[in-house]
Amino acid sequence: MNRIPSSPRVAVVGATGAVGREMFSILEQREFPAASVTAFASARSAGKTIPFRGELLTVEELTAESLNDFDLALFSAGGGTSKRFAPIAAKAGCVVVDNSSAFRMDDDVPLVVPEVNPEALDGHSNIIANPNCSTIQMVVALAPLNKVSRIERIIVSTYQAVSGTGQAAIDELMSQAYTIQAGDDVTPQVYPKQIAYNVLPHIDDFLDSGFTKEEMKMVNETRKILNDQSIAVNATTVRVPVVRGHSESVYIETQTRIGAAKAREVLSASDGIRLVDEPETGGYPVPLDCAGQDDTLVGRVRDDLDAETGLSLWVVADNLRKGAALNAVQIAELLLDR
Amino acid sequence: MNRIPSSPRVAVVGATGAVGREMFSILEQREFPAASVTAFASARSAGKTIPFRGELLTVEELTAESLNDFDLALFSAGGGTSKRFAPIAAKAGCVVVDNSSAFRMDDDVPLVVPEVNPEALDGHSNIIANPNCSTIQMVVALAPLNKVSRIERIIVSTYQAVSGTGQAAIDELMSQAYTIQAGDDVTPQVYPKQIAYNVLPHIDDFLDSGFTKEEMKMVNETRKILNDQSIAVNATTVRVPVVRGHSESVYIETQTRIGAAKAREVLSASDGIRLVDEPETGGYPVPLDCAGQDDTLVGRVRDDLDAETGLSLWVVADNLRKGAALNAVQIAELLLDR
Repeated sequence: MNRIPSSPRVAVVGATGAVGREMFSILEQREFPAASVTAFASARSAGKTIPFRGELLTVEELTAESLNDFDLALFSAGGGTSKRFAPIAAKAGCVVVDNSSAFRMDDDVPLVVPEVNPEALDGHSNIIANPNCSTIQMVVALAPLNKVSRIERIIVSTYQAVSGTGQAAIDELMSQAYTIQAGDDVTPQVYPKQIAYNVLPHIDDFLDSGFTKEEMKMVNETRKILNDQSIAVNATTVRVPVVRGHSESVYIETQTRIGAAKAREVLSASDGIRLVDEPETGGYPVPLDCAGQDDTLVGRVRDDLDAETGLSLWVVADNLRKGAALNAVQIAELLLDR
Repeated sequence: MNRIPSSPRVAVVGATGAVGREMFSILEQREFPAASVTAFASARSAGKTIPFRGELLTVEELTAESLNDFDLALFSAGGGTSKRFAPIAAKAGCVVVDNSSAFRMDDDVPLVVPEVNPEALDGHSNIIANPNCSTIQMVVALAPLNKVSRIERIIVSTYQAVSGTGQAAIDELMSQAYTIQAGDDVTPQVYPKQIAYNVLPHIDDFLDSGFTKEEMKMVNETRKILNDQSIAVNATTVRVPVVRGHSESVYIETQTRIGAAKAREVLSASDGIRLVDEPETGGYPVPLDCAGQDDTLVGRVRDDLDAETGLSLWVVADNLRKGAALNAVQIAELLLDR
């Protein structure tokens, strides 16, 4: 476990992807006190430039030697790159905040949402995992309620934006919409079926149980972050033709009754949450409202009609910010404070 | 309760709407044995023509006297028109199949899904109600399971197409997509917020409980159709930028365990259902696949990981056909058989 100096040398790995670009914008907006910021990507993207703090950074190719002289590396280049390069960086004394699923379930790797379990950062082996986008926003919304009364079960259906897949998926959605408008046939490439004007109940690979890996991330990561292996989670994860902003229809049951009124009160007083819950006047969150926002938006809080401890919520967040880049930078800020 | 002759004189009320147009196409496809078919709409649409069986029907304005000489009227012109004209028609001896919500919860009005509760047609007062689109496809999928073991609770989140709102909403979605492509600002008219590249957890009006009327339709209509007031239903209904085809993420608990394997077997042997459940090879239903299909498509059947009697399903159907026009014509066919 290396300490990070107060002005760290920072590497951003996967600099040209949808999350990587967001990473630079967040480092700049939050005035992260980096001594230097260096952009890395694969050979294919090396030489591209990225605007940062009024300059243009030239993207460098990531190699085994690249990360020898950094204090902090923000990885967002997929599981393969993380598995290969994060351990090398960690061994060289660089603290890695990794946005892939490669290390999330490892016992010695903290899985951290700063508003929820900052204490998990006590003791790490230089690799810290950023949870999956769909998990992050759900636990931000549920953790304050879990403190009032332990959550026993969660049943969640998601409405996930294509930017979670990356820039190629954004391009595919927009170009399919254009092709359809022109009256031509669509040939899906990034997704197995057309995503424009369609919804796909299929994110990541299917497992023998019939659940997908994305759905199991919501099960396993939620338990690890809330530090409670007994929480029952049933997830259905669905891709929708939205560019940015994941939405989640979340039903929970708690050990004792919280009630919608108290839940609203607790949520509106919690860090990282903005309660948007005045349905009569259009006061409910939608993905278009959350783009570029740091907060997780929560609305449609209501008591179940039958189960005494049942509560429904609608949770929306910017999947590229809180679901990825912002959460990673917030973890880095916590590490600086230590 | 009037009997319908084997070659009835048929009126289609609301002939120029999205569901009305589908009604003509289904009457034609199924070779419904009508002696005559007459198209009615509001004064605004009178004079328009509708192709039917190789001819052009001229739309007539609906007035209090219009329905004196018909045996069967298929209403799909909104609750106001139904409330005003259906009782007049019924009194004149015409049997009305009404697609609005005006009479659905009336004790003397059967609420019928032909595959599920045809027996409800025994004894009526000349008005029969067609359930809401989101309810129909859910009960088609759940009724066969309910026969194996009583369903105790349902937790459902929907992904509903804009055609459920009508033709103006289809036009709004397509024109917003076009406006965005052109780089211009969108001004929502049919929906309270932009629907293109967005999702709205808001269908029909909000009630004090925080649920919407659409959500309560799923509660109350499901109980009436399955003839079981004790079923607990928790619904979150959401509009998505899809033109045609509603999808539903449905979680149920039954009195005793059915299990996914047995559930698949039962579903694939049931009328009106096509099981599409081979996820590894893309075998799951999506709304684009269901347009123009009569069957309700069911996939992603899987056992809950914790609750012994818990089952998840993904249910997709053409909201204009099975969710509206087809179900109404199927009801009419049942009435002819009697």
